[in-house]
Amino acid sequence: MSTLICPTPIATDDRVQLGHGSGGKMSAGLLKARFLPHFTNDVLAQLGDAAVVDVNGQEVAISTDTFVVNPLEFPGGNIGSLAVHGTVNDLAMMGARPVYLSAGFVLEEGLPFDVLDRVVSAMGEAARAAGVLLITGDTKVVERGKADGVFINTTGIGLMAPDFTPGPARARPGDAVLVSGPLGRHGIAIMTAREGLAFEAEIESDSAILYPLVERLRAAAGPDVHTLRDPTRGGVASALNEIAAASGVGIALVEPHIPIPPAVAAACEMLGFDPLYVANEGVLLAFVPEPLAEPCLAALRAHPLGRDAARIGRVVDTHPGMVVLETAIGGTRVVDMLPGDQLPRIC
Amino acid sequence: MSTLICPTPIATDDRVQLGHGSGGKMSAGLLKARFLPHFTNDVLAQLGDAAVVDVNGQEVAISTDTFVVNPLEFPGGNIGSLAVHGTVNDLAMMGARPVYLSAGFVLEEGLPFDVLDRVVSAMGEAARAAGVLLITGDTKVVERGKADGVFINTTGIGLMAPDFTPGPARARPGDAVLVSGPLGRHGIAIMTAREGLAFEAEIESDSAILYPLVERLRAAAGPDVHTLRDPTRGGVASALNEIAAASGVGIALVEPHIPIPPAVAAACEMLGFDPLYVANEGVLLAFVPEPLAEPCLAALRAHPLGRDAARIGRVVDTHPGMVVLETAIGGTRVVDMLPGDQLPRIC
Repeated sequence: MSTLICPTPIATDDRVQLGHGSGGKMSAGLLKARFLPHFTNDVLAQLGDAAVVDVNGQEVAISTDTFVVNPLEFPGGNIGSLAVHGTVNDLAMMGARPVYLSAGFVLEEGLPFDVLDRVVSAMGEAARAAGVLLITGDTKVVERGKADGVFINTTGIGLMAPDFTPGPARARPGDAVLVSGPLGRHGIAIMTAREGLAFEAEIESDSAILYPLVERLRAAAGPDVHTLRDPTRGGVASALNEIAAASGVGIALVEPHIPIPPAVAAACEMLGFDPLYVANEGVLLAFVPEPLAEPCLAALRAHPLGRDAARIGRVVDTHPGMVVLETAIGGTRVVDMLPGDQLPRIC
Repeated sequence: MSTLICPTPIATDDRVQLGHGSGGKMSAGLLKARFLPHFTNDVLAQLGDAAVVDVNGQEVAISTDTFVVNPLEFPGGNIGSLAVHGTVNDLAMMGARPVYLSAGFVLEEGLPFDVLDRVVSAMGEAARAAGVLLITGDTKVVERGKADGVFINTTGIGLMAPDFTPGPARARPGDAVLVSGPLGRHGIAIMTAREGLAFEAEIESDSAILYPLVERLRAAAGPDVHTLRDPTRGGVASALNEIAAASGVGIALVEPHIPIPPAVAAACEMLGFDPLYVANEGVLLAFVPEPLAEPCLAALRAHPLGRDAARIGRVVDTHPGMVVLETAIGGTRVVDMLPGDQLPRIC
């Protein structure tokens, strides 16, 4: 008597899959089905990059992020610098000035101290550069094989400024969509480091602190900065889809205007990736009314991080909830949200 | 030609070891050698259960903790309820009223959704019971074998009350040392669940929200509550050693007064553990001036969690920095801090 065995693994829907951590549709589904029903409150329900609460008359933004990037070290940074940049940028995207950070480490038994030292040192340096104080922390150690080197959670506290509340639901038809720099560098840097690939030009992660750009946009357009978003997991495509859905608007991108470095484009072609879905860690998207687009671009370009800032599209009142790309050859295609991962464990 | 091979693993000092996560001497050493040098600031340097900062004239306590308990579910709770209790209790030990919580999840691919659902549901229930709002979260997924089911970081925000600032450095000679309930239940519950042991009486974790006890102590003794501490990792022995060191005082415990349930005592004897080093998650230590000991004990006993509250010792000006135990047979012994773990991954 023989037992029938399925030769390929069947995707089950009763277990966590890698795609649930992608920042795409599966992540959104997991959040909606498994987490939100247990935590009903108005602040969480807004699902911004950070939560905003009132403390004694001061609006305070709070954001948390756990970093599981693989490998731990990559061109342009390591998990320590990334853990600072990622969280302070989430605060900055709410318009908040980052001030405090907590850090929770899970270390795998056997992690070489020299790796840990480089990670913690980069973290300290990034915190100083961001002007934030790391004020409390926690360290746990698990047995060899029960983690992957280091995981770091950072939770950040930022202070909101009066009359400056960019949000994912505030994009309006007529807004210009700006991007502060070239796309796709973080994801490709991670991928090449992970797989030991070598391209002609080494691609470094763009991991950086975005608050200085936010300050400049605030000076240029104040309350008219409708929406800010750092397109990390899931890239520009996922970030714009979330904004289109939250604001109930359509977004039209103009392909030739999207700044993609030739090295990133070449790597994406070779690896079969679409650069619009590749993670960035030092780039922001800004939505401002069309008449403020040029002053805002000038403000961004005045900072080294924003030197290559560009206008890549506009908000439209047709196709609400949808992002379309006007291609170089005159066609259009829908830029949907991916269900799962192009690149797992990118941050 | 043969190569010499050492038959037993040598403890190296260039890698992370399990004991570095114990909450004992090795943890303290890791913190001092590897973390603090990179993050110099006055708030972090205080190394309390939580950091306290000023926001617009309101003192705010912030605490972070990552939970890696194994197994995920145990008698009396699971990693979800523990992740809420652990962090809100750290805030409460600073005298702060817990108000907000963030949660960062690392999920292992393949985790059954029914386990996740029970964890998240317990978390929601614990948050509601604690009166805290979970306002922001993050979820990452790593490949099978790169984590151990679920790790959860929670970071909590609490509001300090005026004139109520218990702290580890405020214990004074003449203080009575109170404990709010029987010791050792969490650690033994975890250990029996992990090893599949069965004792005559099932021992449940004491995991619980301690803030209601803190409120009662505040009502009874106000600013005279010198020190509060929840003796988690490393147990009562480690907590008292930290307080003795931070306050520069000696602590004398009276062994027959220490409430250790017979089932815990029996399990400890069988497993070779000292109950003073076993973790608790629903017990607090309080230091108050001797004349306030009875009113404070009465206040604790008026709450179900504090029913078995007891006075277990006193602060002395002899042997500063040292904890001694006056035994039942009239001797004394030093209760030192352990270097590493009795029980790894207890929280």
